[in-house]
Amino acid sequence: MLDNIRIVLSHTSHPGNIGATARAMKNMGLTQLYLVNPKEFPHQKATERAVGADDLLENAQVVTDLEQALVGCELVLGCSARVRALAWPMLNPREAATKIFTLSKTCSKPVAILFGQEKAGLTNEELQRCQYHVYIPANEAYTSLNLASAVQVICYELRMALDLPMPEPMAHDEPASSESLEYFFRHLEETLIETRFLDPEHPKQLMPRLRRLFTRLQLEKMEVDLLRGMLTAFQGKRFLKEGSEEK
Amino acid sequence: MLDNIRIVLSHTSHPGNIGATARAMKNMGLTQLYLVNPKEFPHQKATERAVGADDLLENAQVVTDLEQALVGCELVLGCSARVRALAWPMLNPREAATKIFTLSKTCSKPVAILFGQEKAGLTNEELQRCQYHVYIPANEAYTSLNLASAVQVICYELRMALDLPMPEPMAHDEPASSESLEYFFRHLEETLIETRFLDPEHPKQLMPRLRRLFTRLQLEKMEVDLLRGMLTAFQGKRFLKEGSEEK
Repeated sequence: MLDNIRIVLSHTSHPGNIGATARAMKNMGLTQLYLVNPKEFPHQKATERAVGADDLLENAQVVTDLEQALVGCELVLGCSARVRALAWPMLNPREAATKIFTLSKTCSKPVAILFGQEKAGLTNEELQRCQYHVYIPANEAYTSLNLASAVQVICYELRMALDLPMPEPMAHDEPASSESLEYFFRHLEETLIETRFLDPEHPKQLMPRLRRLFTRLQLEKMEVDLLRGMLTAFQGKRFLKEGSEEK
Repeated sequence: MLDNIRIVLSHTSHPGNIGATARAMKNMGLTQLYLVNPKEFPHQKATERAVGADDLLENAQVVTDLEQALVGCELVLGCSARVRALAWPMLNPREAATKIFTLSKTCSKPVAILFGQEKAGLTNEELQRCQYHVYIPANEAYTSLNLASAVQVICYELRMALDLPMPEPMAHDEPASSESLEYFFRHLEETLIETRFLDPEHPKQLMPRLRRLFTRLQLEKMEVDLLRGMLTAFQGKRFLKEGSEEK
C-alpha cells in the first residue's frame, strides 16, 4: 500500500524541506516523491536534511506541471491549513489514511497527496484538482505547520492505518509456573509474619491484596527467583539476630 | 490539558531542532518546553526555525538536570526508537495520548514527555526514569525520526485526543505518581543494601531489573504505600537488632 502513495510537493521554496520530507517519508515506509517545479533542487541543504533518505531524493520525479505528477492516480488529496471560501469534502489525517487504506484493498492504482508552497499553500486551482482536502487539526491561532512536519503527520497516519503490530521488545523469559508462584506467596507470607507486618491472628486483606498485585505482573521464572532471593535476605537479618541471641 | 504537558528535550545538539520543536508544539497547542543541557541555546538557528513560536523559546525552562524538569510530574513518558535489551511498558503515540487524556480527567499535575539527544536518544538512565516508553511505528530499516518530527507526531496525537471523544476508562484506584514511585525505588534500594542483597560496589543490573518489574505493574497509590510499609517492616528487624545490641 505505502509504495502506491505519491507525496507531491508543489513549488517548494526551501530545499531543506524537500530533504526533511524525504526523511519523514522513508521513516514511515513511503518511497514515491514527486516535485512540481521546486525552486532549488537538487541542493546540498536537501541532501543534508534527508540524512539517510537520499535514495528518495535520487529517485524523486521532478516535473514541471502538476498533471504529470498525477498521471494514473485513482485518488488525489490535498493538504490544506487555510479555511477556504469554497467548501470541499474535508478529512482529518486519520480519516484520510482510512480512506486510502480501504481503497487499497480493491484498487492498485496510485494515490497522490499534494502539499503546496510553504507560505501560500496549495493554490485554488490545485485544490480543485483534489477529491478531498486534508486538514491537520491545529491551534487556531497558529495553524501553519512546517511542510515536512505536515508530511510527517500524514505519513504517520498511513503507517498507523496499516496497523502494523508493535515489534516484540525482546524475547521474554519463561513465565513462572503456577506452582512456583504459590511457593513465592508462601515465602512472602512467612517473611511478613516474621517481620510482624502480618499478624496471622488478624490477617485482614493483606495477602489477597498482595496476590492481586503480584499476579497482575505475570512474573517470569527468573523474576520469581530474584524476589525469593530478596525475601531470604530480608529473613536473613532475623536469623542473624536469632543467632546472636543464642550466643 | 495541553498546558499541563511538558515537552522535555535532553542534551539537544542542534539548536534548529529546538526551534522546530517549539513550532510543532505551538501548532498543536502545547506551550511548556523544558531543555536539559542544550548544547547551544539560545541560538539564531533556533529562532529561525521557530518561525512564529519564539514565545515558546523565550519561556523555555533551561535546566541542568533532568530531575529539575520533572518536579511535580505525575506521569513521565520517554520517546524511544531503539529496541532496548530491557523490556519496558510500551505505548504507541495514540495509546500514550489516550493515557494522558484519561489521566487529565482526574489529576491536574503535569505530565512530561522526554526526548533524548538526536543521535543517541535517551540514555538508559533517563529511560528508567519513565513509567512508559513511547514508540513511533516506523520503517524497520530506518527508524530514527528527526527530533522535531517525533515531537510533531506525539503532539499531533495529543491534539487528536483532545478533539475526538474518547471512551470512559474503567474506574480504578488512583495511579501512583512518578515522584512516589521514585521514593519507593529509593526505599527498596536502601533496604536491599541494608540486608546485603545489593552490594553498592557491584550493583550489577539489580535495580534496573527491579525497576522494570515494578514499573510493569502500573502501581496504584495505595499499593505503593503498602509496599513501602513492608520495606519498613523488613528494615525494622535491623533497627530491632541494632537496638538489642546496644543493650
